[in-house]
Amino acid sequence: MQNGWFGGIAIALPAASRYEIRRMKSAWLDISIPVHTGMVHWPDNPVPNVFRFFKMEDGLPCNVSALFMSAHTGTHMDSPRHFIADGDGMETAPLDAILGPCRVVEIKDPEAIKAGELKKLKLRRGERVLFKTRNSAGKWWEKPFDRDFVGIWKEAAQVIVDAGVRTVGIDYLSVGPFRKDGVETHQILLGAKVWILEGLNLCQVKPGNYELICLPLKITGCDGAPARAVLRKLGKG
Amino acid sequence: MQNGWFGGIAIALPAASRYEIRRMKSAWLDISIPVHTGMVHWPDNPVPNVFRFFKMEDGLPCNVSALFMSAHTGTHMDSPRHFIADGDGMETAPLDAILGPCRVVEIKDPEAIKAGELKKLKLRRGERVLFKTRNSAGKWWEKPFDRDFVGIWKEAAQVIVDAGVRTVGIDYLSVGPFRKDGVETHQILLGAKVWILEGLNLCQVKPGNYELICLPLKITGCDGAPARAVLRKLGKG
Repeated sequence: MQNGWFGGIAIALPAASRYEIRRMKSAWLDISIPVHTGMVHWPDNPVPNVFRFFKMEDGLPCNVSALFMSAHTGTHMDSPRHFIADGDGMETAPLDAILGPCRVVEIKDPEAIKAGELKKLKLRRGERVLFKTRNSAGKWWEKPFDRDFVGIWKEAAQVIVDAGVRTVGIDYLSVGPFRKDGVETHQILLGAKVWILEGLNLCQVKPGNYELICLPLKITGCDGAPARAVLRKLGKG
Repeated sequence: MQNGWFGGIAIALPAASRYEIRRMKSAWLDISIPVHTGMVHWPDNPVPNVFRFFKMEDGLPCNVSALFMSAHTGTHMDSPRHFIADGDGMETAPLDAILGPCRVVEIKDPEAIKAGELKKLKLRRGERVLFKTRNSAGKWWEKPFDRDFVGIWKEAAQVIVDAGVRTVGIDYLSVGPFRKDGVETHQILLGAKVWILEGLNLCQVKPGNYELICLPLKITGCDGAPARAVLRKLGKG
């Protein structure tokens, strides 16, 4: 029964009721990428490192690992302080920006998220929007850093702000492209207190309406934080 | 409207309907402790360190911080691999162990969570249970490490396993006490694949039924992971 609620496998359920079948359609999808040593990272950030400093193989009673990584590693959020000198830190992210209904939209343009395509999406005030782009054509997190990933051009960032969008997410390590507008896009979004979710795995996610749960670590005063995020289909499933 | 759903402030809402008022009663409560340099930590683990390595005050366009800390820092989860040599890593934690209904129970015994008191709670198969103990009398995370915190004695860990509990949480850095049974309690719980949530802030949480959202970082093969956890009251509110 609990499996039916939260993403279990059909075979693990008792004889399925209509209720259970409906629930199974809306299982939680994990949209976080795995964290490990040497994983893909922004070029000028330190190489992520997870290492075991107490080991059972050395006769100790337990294994204990430590982490060394940028706060912007893997699936993560940016706080305003990332690009605004006196901006709010990660601990101020309101739960209602990161928990609740969201819309996954597909971006067709293989180059960038541009103002023209965004305007057709009729972005709404207070909306949480995740952009699924060409980046999701493969498991980008298993490949070397891609300097040509699809990001948001600055004019499109302004469209997002003007629409009053609350939270934006993207399927690569940054909302801002590597070669162009990376600084400006962050400044525009974070300056308007749009919350940013980066490093999503949207490969298996179809465009549509979902419930979003995204929980970043509550790191006091920090410019960002690693996060875990999951989605569940809303509506007919 | 969205504020009403997810813990907003009354004044931010349009004229409140009965529906909105009911929703506001069950706002999300953050039960995670803040992460910062020098925060309270297990004595033989490294001192947590959050440091900014790119700084706007140095003329750079952005602030970027890095983290160095044990995977068992602050609010976090243990995976079986913490005390079982070939146990499963953090990435295997099933979402249905950490998302869903849970029960917050109050432990009266000021010394430890013991089998006798646990047996009266009628723990149920598949249940997610968070223990609120004497540890929650104050903000324990703002004080030095307390070697006398309330943890679970090994006989009580066996009661939890025998009841078939799915997930246990506690309001200090470990389910196992510092002076006694620390190893055994972990071995019993993790050996039975009970998922463990530690370092909770339950100071403001009354015993009762809640919806739990706990999302640990998905660290491949790791013995634990920092997490963020929130609760929302179920039932009458």
